[in-house]
Amino acid sequence: MLTEDHVARELFRDGMSRLAGAVNIVTTMAETGPVGFTASAVCSVSDQPPTLLVCVNNGSSVAPAFRAAQSLCVNTVGPRYAELARLFGGRTPMADRFAQSVWHDGITGAPMLDEALVSFDCRVSERAEVATHSVLFCRVVDVRMSVEDLRASVWFGRRFHELD
Amino acid sequence: MLTEDHVARELFRDGMSRLAGAVNIVTTMAETGPVGFTASAVCSVSDQPPTLLVCVNNGSSVAPAFRAAQSLCVNTVGPRYAELARLFGGRTPMADRFAQSVWHDGITGAPMLDEALVSFDCRVSERAEVATHSVLFCRVVDVRMSVEDLRASVWFGRRFHELD
Repeated sequence: MLTEDHVARELFRDGMSRLAGAVNIVTTMAETGPVGFTASAVCSVSDQPPTLLVCVNNGSSVAPAFRAAQSLCVNTVGPRYAELARLFGGRTPMADRFAQSVWHDGITGAPMLDEALVSFDCRVSERAEVATHSVLFCRVVDVRMSVEDLRASVWFGRRFHELD
Repeated sequence: MLTEDHVARELFRDGMSRLAGAVNIVTTMAETGPVGFTASAVCSVSDQPPTLLVCVNNGSSVAPAFRAAQSLCVNTVGPRYAELARLFGGRTPMADRFAQSVWHDGITGAPMLDEALVSFDCRVSERAEVATHSVLFCRVVDVRMSVEDLRASVWFGRRFHELD
């Protein structure tokens, strides 16, 4: 019989710091107004139909809005918006987060960041509850790509990097 | 009534080429021997308990092995193994893929790549079927990190990049 259950949380976090990830500001339009947070746990699922997933920590301040959300927008950002991503990853009040840059409404009504590297406007199609997180599977109904900003920001080794 | 259903497949793929991702060789020990493929659709889910997810295309050659798998190993690689990642992303026979480098058995029996940037040895704990893919949620039972290789490979803009 194997007795191991899982690794220690700190070892897992150290390991995950070596798994590079895109920097995404994920938004939705809640009844109270726009809500958003910075996430690296976003990935492509299928291109038939176009589907991605977003993991949301159920203990976070944005969880109630995203648990109720029918739609959301994944705004993947480059160095131009690295500071904005920091802001959306912190404790700044929502209204102040959105006041720092230019947004418009996506088809679904979710806030889309002007000149993000790429924005995916989505309808939430399925959900899974896994450990402390909700996994939102999303059908992509619109994609907008910046024509100016072609560099990526990457989260790796607990800091931002720039990628041409 | 909104009439949009989803974006065209090509637009989605163009958009996804701007979402940077780590380069991972995901392996399992099947009845027929070791099986592995290169995946960017891997992400952290929770640290309580340590959980990650891997998306597997049900139409791929490795799908039967991973649909049956009780365990798997995510080997996240740096530039040192970029060529190996290409090999695991192509049509090379399994035995030839594994012959190109040094592997050892993880706790679960899944093949662990020597000196990967980080390896996550996992037990599959839950599965979800979403569109064309199986999403495998995995409990992490061991983490190994290279002490030599501290650079990441990143997939972005349809090519590999190196990250310090």
